Amino acid sequence: MEISSARAPAGSRLLATPLGAHAACRRSGQLLRPRRHTVRCSVDATRQAQGIPSAVAAEAEAAEARKRAFGVFCTTYDLKADEKTKSWKKMVNIAVSGAAGMISNHLLFQSYRFILSSHFSLANLEKKKLLSTIHFDTNFQIAAGEVFGLDQPIALRLLGSERSFQALEGVAMELEDSLYPLLREVSIGIDPYEVFEDADWALLIGAKPRGPGMERAALLDINGQIFAEQGKALNAVASKNVKVIVVGNPCNTNALICIKNAPNIPAKNFHALTRLDENRAKCQLALKAGVFYDRVSNMTIWGNHSTTQVPDFLNAKIDGRPVKEVIKDTKWLEEEFTLTVQKRGGVLIEKWGRSSAASTAVSIVDAMKSLVTPTPEGDWFSSGVYTTGNPYGIAEDIVFSMPCRSKGDGDYELATDVEIDDFLWERIKKTEAELLAEKKCVAHLTGDGIAFCDLVNEDTMLPGEM
Amino acid sequence: MEISSARAPAGSRLLATPLGAHAACRRSGQLLRPRRHTVRCSVDATRQAQGIPSAVAAEAEAAEARKRAFGVFCTTYDLKADEKTKSWKKMVNIAVSGAAGMISNHLLFQSYRFILSSHFSLANLEKKKLLSTIHFDTNFQIAAGEVFGLDQPIALRLLGSERSFQALEGVAMELEDSLYPLLREVSIGIDPYEVFEDADWALLIGAKPRGPGMERAALLDINGQIFAEQGKALNAVASKNVKVIVVGNPCNTNALICIKNAPNIPAKNFHALTRLDENRAKCQLALKAGVFYDRVSNMTIWGNHSTTQVPDFLNAKIDGRPVKEVIKDTKWLEEEFTLTVQKRGGVLIEKWGRSSAASTAVSIVDAMKSLVTPTPEGDWFSSGVYTTGNPYGIAEDIVFSMPCRSKGDGDYELATDVEIDDFLWERIKKTEAELLAEKKCVAHLTGDGIAFCDLVNEDTMLPGEM
Repeated sequence: MEISSARAPAGSRLLATPLGAHAACRRSGQLLRPRRHTVRCSVDATRQAQGIPSAVAAEAEAAEARKRAFGVFCTTYDLKADEKTKSWKKMVNIAVSGAAGMISNHLLFQSYRFILSSHFSLANLEKKKLLSTIHFDTNFQIAAGEVFGLDQPIALRLLGSERSFQALEGVAMELEDSLYPLLREVSIGIDPYEVFEDADWALLIGAKPRGPGMERAALLDINGQIFAEQGKALNAVASKNVKVIVVGNPCNTNALICIKNAPNIPAKNFHALTRLDENRAKCQLALKAGVFYDRVSNMTIWGNHSTTQVPDFLNAKIDGRPVKEVIKDTKWLEEEFTLTVQKRGGVLIEKWGRSSAASTAVSIVDAMKSLVTPTPEGDWFSSGVYTTGNPYGIAEDIVFSMPCRSKGDGDYELATDVEIDDFLWERIKKTEAELLAEKKCVAHLTGDGIAFCDLVNEDTMLPGEM
Repeated sequence: MEISSARAPAGSRLLATPLGAHAACRRSGQLLRPRRHTVRCSVDATRQAQGIPSAVAAEAEAAEARKRAFGVFCTTYDLKADEKTKSWKKMVNIAVSGAAGMISNHLLFQSYRFILSSHFSLANLEKKKLLSTIHFDTNFQIAAGEVFGLDQPIALRLLGSERSFQALEGVAMELEDSLYPLLREVSIGIDPYEVFEDADWALLIGAKPRGPGMERAALLDINGQIFAEQGKALNAVASKNVKVIVVGNPCNTNALICIKNAPNIPAKNFHALTRLDENRAKCQLALKAGVFYDRVSNMTIWGNHSTTQVPDFLNAKIDGRPVKEVIKDTKWLEEEFTLTVQKRGGVLIEKWGRSSAASTAVSIVDAMKSLVTPTPEGDWFSSGVYTTGNPYGIAEDIVFSMPCRSKGDGDYELATDVEIDDFLWERIKKTEAELLAEKKCVAHLTGDGIAFCDLVNEDTMLPGEM
């Protein structure tokens, strides 16, 4: 594998700048930005085998993309020229930041078959007339994805850092060695303007972990800078309908910063991951009720992905009945349940010596799945989304986890059949206040003026990846 | 979660022994063996919800098994009493050793949907009359598995060590939080006689890594002890048709030790994992030929999972044509190709700072898949298997990686349409000699008398998990 600091290809809008130039800037309408450490392909035409139809010819655009591809993924595959793949769908580009970290390492391998396969639309479903025979309950969504998505080729674009670049190469090599049949392109890089190009999905996992003694305001600022830059990069080069899932903590406020720095991408396309919290809450209710967790539905996590989060046992259901009818222990619901969900990550770090990368990765896949498969009738899922026009009376212009439903087209609507009592509202207001305070801390990154940080001292932040 | 050192249940054949008693022994026909640190369920009948049909009643046997289950998996689920699950297949028990390590952590999560879903038989396939519409080429095996296996409930039995027990609890907690619909039981423990009970699959991943300056003979002995004990445990308590995949290095000789200590289990049921080597070899040939890796077939790894392994480019095919017709660079095939495959793991450790856990886990799933799905017509896969009655003239009574074909029933036959030339034979003899030497080193563990270790000094061992 040849590694070189990249040169801008002839005809590119992109100019090379010296290493270390971090900020993107515009000069007379052209993007001037750093292009660093891009892996360029060591496979050239002379190494290609003769006489294999799929190895011949492919349009200039694809060839250009592959200049940045890694190893075996550089090879010229003309999917249309190949009997086996000619009916396949258009390539889906999935960008992943923090790609050398543990969550990503789990996500990229763990969830492969799902990511590879679930990217289908309702239109496809109806066309195939299988809606009636496939059960769209929580058990079988995956099956549906697996069935309809096996003609969905995937390109992975992995974003790392200078420090992690060698590990990123290792990830790409392991992806090669895994022989995933639908994975057709892998590229790695450290410049979001390059890696996010034409991304249909951006899974923003990378964030600085909180150092010992670090103030929350400092962490908000450090990570905010990263997400401001990534928002700008998405705005400049990603698909205009890119779906963005922010995982790096503090994920709600990081997502807000992304939104504010990506004015050309609909705010509705951005999500802060609260799905792991939802999964944990479902599991705890199931455990308490003595049922398997597929019986628990309508589980909302409200608010911030921090310890102020509100796992909602008022609207959640077990076997279609309100949780409170099944679990009579109100004290447990009001106290222990919420605490257990909030503290689960910390307990896992104690047990495991590292953060819960595997189940986080599972929940990222779940979150994607919820957007590309129709939500089961009556059910909903939680996601941290932009609050504009929300029906609950939550403050506008923040990213707040709320109950969502999707038709499976990548979009969502907020659930309106939701009850809010005083107990729940009080807690919603508390997590809302926290998010409004976080927003003030990052005003310099959202274009809202000068930052003013008066966060309460209480430590509500959840552990990030270690 | 309550953790207690276990007591033998009333009526059990198993007696409790003090902590720290390691060896299993028999006394007047009864097994006397250590039972340590078993997680017992904290869910009891009084905590179970009322009025939920599936939470009621289940036979005594299942209840007994669940006493050892973890957390939410302790709950009484009567699959037959539940509309959604009453037509499901019989539970499959999958035991995993080294379950708190990185390979397992990837395997358990990464491959879940496959493991969960691929355990189907040819009979089922034919019954469903879908054979004609599903393409059993390398691209679609998974789909087949995913389609037919979604009614296959799974029990996981995770074996760790005293040292790793807390991490093992963390793994079980993350499995809870992942809400896998078909995962119905998880139990964790450190006693193979307990964990391997009724196992249908045993994935033996755990092994001591080689310490600095450790002689190969010492490593063979230390790991041999582990695999002798695990072989005895499998023999005593696992399903008589358990399929065993040995991953912990040196995996061929460890598998041989297992076989010798499990006389009641057919030797044919034991495998040493060489599938990662096969996958890497396919990838390298694809890279050189400029084709996607699904064009490479009939890739054999011969011999030992060490640097004496022989990736066979004589019989391998690209697009159905002999590799040598497609790749004319014989020097590359004879030298660079083999070296690259052998050294890949070492290069990855350099890049990645740790061993290739993710792709190893992928290859374990591939190995399982190859046994439960019919091998595509004309193709084969590599597995380290017992050499009795092999058609190639390889020494009997060792575990040697060879080309295998399966009908998808869990069993395999050796491929006979294989060419062996002088170049290949010379290399096969070298790896065979190494395995025969390893066998002598562990004679005290295989019942072959006194060990005599005259291994050549050259370091051929591949890196294990770190």
